[in-house]
Amino acid sequence: MYLKELLSKAKQAKYDVQKLTKEQKNNVLLKVADAFIKHADIIISENEKDIAYAVEKGMSDGLIDRLRLTLPRIEGMSEGLRQITDLEDPTGRVLEEFKPANGLHVKKVSVPLGLIGVIYESRPNVTADAFGLCFMAGNAVVLKGGSDAIHSNRVIVKIIREVLEKEGHNPDILSFVDSTKRETVMELMKMNEYIDVLIPRGGASLIQSVVNNSTIPVIETGTGNCHIYVDDSADLNEAVKIILNAKTQRIGVCNACESLLIHNSIYESFLPTLEKALKEKNVEIRADEISATILKDCIPATEEDYYKEYLDYIISIKIVNNVDEAITHINKYNTHHSDAILTKNMNNAEKFLNEVDSACVYVNASTRFTDGFEFGFGAEIGISTQKLHARGPMGLKELNTYKYEIIGNGQIRG
Amino acid sequence: MYLKELLSKAKQAKYDVQKLTKEQKNNVLLKVADAFIKHADIIISENEKDIAYAVEKGMSDGLIDRLRLTLPRIEGMSEGLRQITDLEDPTGRVLEEFKPANGLHVKKVSVPLGLIGVIYESRPNVTADAFGLCFMAGNAVVLKGGSDAIHSNRVIVKIIREVLEKEGHNPDILSFVDSTKRETVMELMKMNEYIDVLIPRGGASLIQSVVNNSTIPVIETGTGNCHIYVDDSADLNEAVKIILNAKTQRIGVCNACESLLIHNSIYESFLPTLEKALKEKNVEIRADEISATILKDCIPATEEDYYKEYLDYIISIKIVNNVDEAITHINKYNTHHSDAILTKNMNNAEKFLNEVDSACVYVNASTRFTDGFEFGFGAEIGISTQKLHARGPMGLKELNTYKYEIIGNGQIRG
Repeated sequence: MYLKELLSKAKQAKYDVQKLTKEQKNNVLLKVADAFIKHADIIISENEKDIAYAVEKGMSDGLIDRLRLTLPRIEGMSEGLRQITDLEDPTGRVLEEFKPANGLHVKKVSVPLGLIGVIYESRPNVTADAFGLCFMAGNAVVLKGGSDAIHSNRVIVKIIREVLEKEGHNPDILSFVDSTKRETVMELMKMNEYIDVLIPRGGASLIQSVVNNSTIPVIETGTGNCHIYVDDSADLNEAVKIILNAKTQRIGVCNACESLLIHNSIYESFLPTLEKALKEKNVEIRADEISATILKDCIPATEEDYYKEYLDYIISIKIVNNVDEAITHINKYNTHHSDAILTKNMNNAEKFLNEVDSACVYVNASTRFTDGFEFGFGAEIGISTQKLHARGPMGLKELNTYKYEIIGNGQIRG
Repeated sequence: MYLKELLSKAKQAKYDVQKLTKEQKNNVLLKVADAFIKHADIIISENEKDIAYAVEKGMSDGLIDRLRLTLPRIEGMSEGLRQITDLEDPTGRVLEEFKPANGLHVKKVSVPLGLIGVIYESRPNVTADAFGLCFMAGNAVVLKGGSDAIHSNRVIVKIIREVLEKEGHNPDILSFVDSTKRETVMELMKMNEYIDVLIPRGGASLIQSVVNNSTIPVIETGTGNCHIYVDDSADLNEAVKIILNAKTQRIGVCNACESLLIHNSIYESFLPTLEKALKEKNVEIRADEISATILKDCIPATEEDYYKEYLDYIISIKIVNNVDEAITHINKYNTHHSDAILTKNMNNAEKFLNEVDSACVYVNASTRFTDGFEFGFGAEIGISTQKLHARGPMGLKELNTYKYEIIGNGQIRG
């Protein structure tokens, strides 16, 4: 009952938010950004309750760090919202316009998705960030954050709702599932009558749980088993730099490289240099039998390794006979996120671009560029690894759908 | 095990079909069209087995008619495939091209969805039709048709696979789940590892079952509780014609009108004329209290009526005070398919276009135009009523997704 009541109001609010102008949306986001700074002490003291509980529970330092809100982090949340106001409102764009034989005037126009549900883990900054992006794209939002961050999320939501209300808007444009019960999330994921789209944000197990349990359309994001294939004609100095960047510039992100394929005519000369560079960054190598004959220090790669998104200082290596074998391997093991070929052979590059089944396919560049900001979208709600709707980095435009607006003068169908 | 083996081959075939040229795809479709005619007698004799079983089971005449394949219907299937060859190949279109600050060259290119699963009911012509459309859009297809049509479907699939093989292509581009077990469909709907997208085609209960049980992304199609709102300034002669067309030109289709809203300042003068016209077509009226005071022959409308997709000679009527009330009613009861306003007031028309949450919103035209052929798409796999991916009529373009092809010259992320 609690959920149905909450979502009924949220569903009503989705029609209200669609009527707001860009100026009204900017005004709300700027006021919320100010309110975060003004109430930083309250946010921090509520956050301390979550931290205290996490410490008591024996949560790891890494996870506690993710959970913690400091003044600089609150300033970061504010700045994030301010930046969204600089972006173009994605709604109301005329995507196509045509007159079929029946004489109707058809316009295909971008419109908000409606009510977006976001299910996420323990980073409380996602609360502000997800709201800001969905809101600027004209959507109402219902948030279900991790139980560990409930005090932090509750106060952030309260501040946003107060601004909405004070500015004369429906506060239910942002709803918050204030529950730590697992049953409530399960129930939420079946609320097709109210929620148009669900976006899970977090680790692979959260995302799998949403994909497996939701009857609402889901945008699957963020699992990246990204590959780099070093072709026989690759510039090997450049290859070392790109591999190092893709593996180690930032560990624990979905666009990091997890697996390396190397052409069999170059591995003997290439691997010693590469191994040295990887070892300097303390990267552990899981190698197939052939590359193990050259490598000084490696662990045998298992079949499971090739499926693995390590998110760690580990990389798997396999030697292949040609670009076709590389493509077949990638299409078998990847997560359709980002894969790269390093080559000077433009035929092989083109083959790779055409045949690798991923959202982003690179020639001679690091996989780390798969990112809404790097693509110039100015924002990112996530990176889609599914085929429906959006693929790759999702900015504001990807938080819209379209409708057909059709004007006639009495047409009936014969 | 049967399914996994079948789908492993189908998954491999999805990479093969993507390499075919438009000419190769045309050639296959034309050869299949010929083969249907050549083997019409075998198709009909297999279909007779299904018919005999249906008669024995006591299936209704209407359903048996849907199931039956005659020579003209087989010719229709052939002609459908020939027509697909006239359409543009939707793959490989450059949708966007840009150079972000990092200097990468990014192309957003249309590509096939991959392996599409189609789950449908007892119309065996869907077997040819769904294959033809998905195939021209570069996809492999796995079909699961209704058990009642299993002999018909089996022989149609066999003919298509034989052509594929004879033309030197992988026959697994088309797979067929040759099973009448319910467990097999349930299992199929969880095969995320192999199938990229599921499209159910059939009645509301089939579609709901797929939406509720699939973990694979689904495109929800075809349920239409379509409304027409007659505003106070509408041309009432035109209104009668449009309502009659939308309700009775074809019963049992998703774009037929099921519910009528009428402005309270015109219902007294409008309803007698409308009732006369509807009665001539034997349309039963389910009316609210106000309209019942004017109507000669009607049944009281219940809350349930307003949610109903009758697909029959029945229409519900409700009187509203203004366009806002009409919009609120529609957004509460509709299925986000197609809704129309009849008006001369351009402010009300614009409000209606903006605020009604449907795939297709009409001004002064029949809802019956929501159709891929009427929109000039030249084909239609279904009409999407969800927000993700495609909305409204889905043609070949909507059977594609996109990928980003990114060319660099050694870029690493700083």
